[in-house]
Amino acid sequence: MLTDLILNSPLIATTNEAENAPIVLAGVLLSLVVIYLASKIGGELSRSIDLPPVLGELLGGVVVGASALHLVMFSESGAAATDSNIMTILQLINNITPAAVTSIFQSQSEIISMLAELGVIILLFEIGLESDLKELTKVGYQAAVVACIGVAVPFAAGTAGLIWLFHAPVIPAIFAGAALTATSIGITSKVLAELGQLKSAEGQIIVGAAVIDDILGIIVLAVVASLAKTGEIDILNVIYLIVSATAFLVGSILLGKYFNSGFVGIANKLQTRGNLIIPALIFAFLMAFLANAIHLEAILGAFAAGLVLDETDKRKELDEQVKPIADILVPVFFVTVGAKVDLGVLNPLVPENRAGLIIATFLIVVAIIGKIITGWAVFGKPGINRLAVGAGMIPRGEVGLVFAGIGAASGTLDKPLEAAIITMVILTTFLAPPLLRFAFKQPPAEKETLEKANLIS
Amino acid sequence: MLTDLILNSPLIATTNEAENAPIVLAGVLLSLVVIYLASKIGGELSRSIDLPPVLGELLGGVVVGASALHLVMFSESGAAATDSNIMTILQLINNITPAAVTSIFQSQSEIISMLAELGVIILLFEIGLESDLKELTKVGYQAAVVACIGVAVPFAAGTAGLIWLFHAPVIPAIFAGAALTATSIGITSKVLAELGQLKSAEGQIIVGAAVIDDILGIIVLAVVASLAKTGEIDILNVIYLIVSATAFLVGSILLGKYFNSGFVGIANKLQTRGNLIIPALIFAFLMAFLANAIHLEAILGAFAAGLVLDETDKRKELDEQVKPIADILVPVFFVTVGAKVDLGVLNPLVPENRAGLIIATFLIVVAIIGKIITGWAVFGKPGINRLAVGAGMIPRGEVGLVFAGIGAASGTLDKPLEAAIITMVILTTFLAPPLLRFAFKQPPAEKETLEKANLIS
Repeated sequence: MLTDLILNSPLIATTNEAENAPIVLAGVLLSLVVIYLASKIGGELSRSIDLPPVLGELLGGVVVGASALHLVMFSESGAAATDSNIMTILQLINNITPAAVTSIFQSQSEIISMLAELGVIILLFEIGLESDLKELTKVGYQAAVVACIGVAVPFAAGTAGLIWLFHAPVIPAIFAGAALTATSIGITSKVLAELGQLKSAEGQIIVGAAVIDDILGIIVLAVVASLAKTGEIDILNVIYLIVSATAFLVGSILLGKYFNSGFVGIANKLQTRGNLIIPALIFAFLMAFLANAIHLEAILGAFAAGLVLDETDKRKELDEQVKPIADILVPVFFVTVGAKVDLGVLNPLVPENRAGLIIATFLIVVAIIGKIITGWAVFGKPGINRLAVGAGMIPRGEVGLVFAGIGAASGTLDKPLEAAIITMVILTTFLAPPLLRFAFKQPPAEKETLEKANLIS
Repeated sequence: MLTDLILNSPLIATTNEAENAPIVLAGVLLSLVVIYLASKIGGELSRSIDLPPVLGELLGGVVVGASALHLVMFSESGAAATDSNIMTILQLINNITPAAVTSIFQSQSEIISMLAELGVIILLFEIGLESDLKELTKVGYQAAVVACIGVAVPFAAGTAGLIWLFHAPVIPAIFAGAALTATSIGITSKVLAELGQLKSAEGQIIVGAAVIDDILGIIVLAVVASLAKTGEIDILNVIYLIVSATAFLVGSILLGKYFNSGFVGIANKLQTRGNLIIPALIFAFLMAFLANAIHLEAILGAFAAGLVLDETDKRKELDEQVKPIADILVPVFFVTVGAKVDLGVLNPLVPENRAGLIIATFLIVVAIIGKIITGWAVFGKPGINRLAVGAGMIPRGEVGLVFAGIGAASGTLDKPLEAAIITMVILTTFLAPPLLRFAFKQPPAEKETLEKANLIS
């Protein structure tokens, strides 16, 4: 009892924190070295066989993560300290007590996860900076239609199929259906940027739809998660989420016009180092915080901040300064997404995986078809590359992993269904970049029509 | 019992971590916004009254930290979640259970502390990049003499004074004496860079001496901390630390020459984004990890990495790319140093503070005189600005805070002595930049002599 009291007292906690800090730092540094090596080796190999580097970064993450080398492991994914080979290395170097090992591992994985979160925030900020607001509003209607169909079709088909074909209970089926609605704007945008298609009509529709999709996806997730918890849908919360998300984006874009001249004025007056990047990050992080505070996703705020600052005279200079920051933070995000996934759940030799594999196959088919068809929902753009639009909506990426994570944490999903959702997320994420690349390699005739259509519109 | 079992099971821990993650992210984003605002407002105000921006960044940290606004607070400094106004804001926005509040606060302060650590690592890497190794080796002997005197005099005078004048027990007296030996290379180097004096003879001696001082300081700290724990000095550990620190720096500089051509070759071959900065950071973080692994300080490894890469053809390009990264991480470090300090321990109106204030006054006098005199230890440089060299060695900064933190955690120091050491660290840190600035504003006659001496040497 006395020992418990001493071990749990704040004084001892403080001492341990201070004592463990150098070991946590060592773990973070080693994790970053592994993450950077994985992202660079994966990215370069991927590029050398003419695939987008982001695919190699994800695969690099898979290699160093839970599936293979067990170097970059995460306590929030259910790994123990003993599963992490970086922790084993740290234990070889330092004399760590068993209690300290768990706490060091948790701190380390929490810090790497947070760096990954800051990475996706910077990524969306950069994408916002590179997106042209005027062109995005041009495709607003098309993007909205693509997004709505890309949410409704996979959700309805997935939920109905699971109930009728697989006799799944209603609530888990709805959860799995909801997980099919997400689109990973981060992965899609990076592939589009690598293909030089971010500013094309297709790219603008995909990014616009992915943003709207993200909002719709978050609303669906909030509704389904509350359904799973209480057994009933909280209508007030649904209305609140819809209204706040819309107001946030529209409001920030409208207010942004007044904000811009003030921002440039402040940046010009500042005399110390970081006179441009620090005010820009204050704005981006504040917007991300506000989006988070009204229970939307932080990345939405960062994206809105990028869109607003894109309109300033300082845009080019800011682009240059954000680049190295994105270069060091964004790979942490992609490698982390890959590392958190355990490809072991795909192994068909393990009998327990087979039930999940059949459901997974169904979910993957729905996930791909449900998004591919959205390309044919685009209207008023005759020469548009419809396959590219549909393919761009396929990757579930980090958003899909959020669904899987919350579903698993809430206890709604059984193991096969959880494994099936994760498999769907992995495969759509891995398939989308080559598919998108293939779609943009359509016969030149169609390309020309598209370019003409762009010139006329 | 059952409740305990459930609450402590890994499954529930995972759930809580996942559930709290968005709130931790909100806390980190808001902390970064406050930190950046404090650093920019402080830095610009400081510059406008002709003081180095770093002083304003530190003061900005004091204003938003434990001394005043209680926004940027740290659990490892002994603050509770209820002390943090950012936690109060997060509680207003979210529905957080009391148990979750503590865990969220700990995660948030741990993450900001780690960003500050990465900040000081990047700072030292940048300083290494900007230092010219050939010029540093030119002043090697002078730097070594300055460092040794700057460690020996304050240590001896402080320990002896506390025992004889204040009748302090031997071990706490030795600890306080050891805390007087540190030099904050980070603060000094930034001030020197701002004054354009990093490459002057004085600047090179100060930085070189601060590096050696850091090594000597770490050895002294290790010895004293083991003395405080066991009551006896571990001679083997002392020898190990001395040998490893020397071998590490000399070894990395010698091996660096072979490494450079390979590094440039790799950077030139890479085709994907971040082809220069990512390999550079892999090297810097690996060196920082290695320094940490052999129980030296991580910043020493980053500094050595910067020194090595300084010799490559890519140096200028690398400088440009490291700059924005330093701009966003280094202010986190300076604001954090300021925020962790509670200036309340300086308040002379509180009777308990008076004992500490008298000891603090003694320590400050020893701290300043013990380092000022090192300027007169420089030989063979007739025109050197001796006051500037001495003044450059004064700030204890983060290194001094490490001493105070470890001393407090080990329970060796009583409250007045702990407060006195912290006060000494604050005042030397705050006094050094204006003093250094004043020292470099010596009469032009002496300046000319100095320049001539530089030209001749």
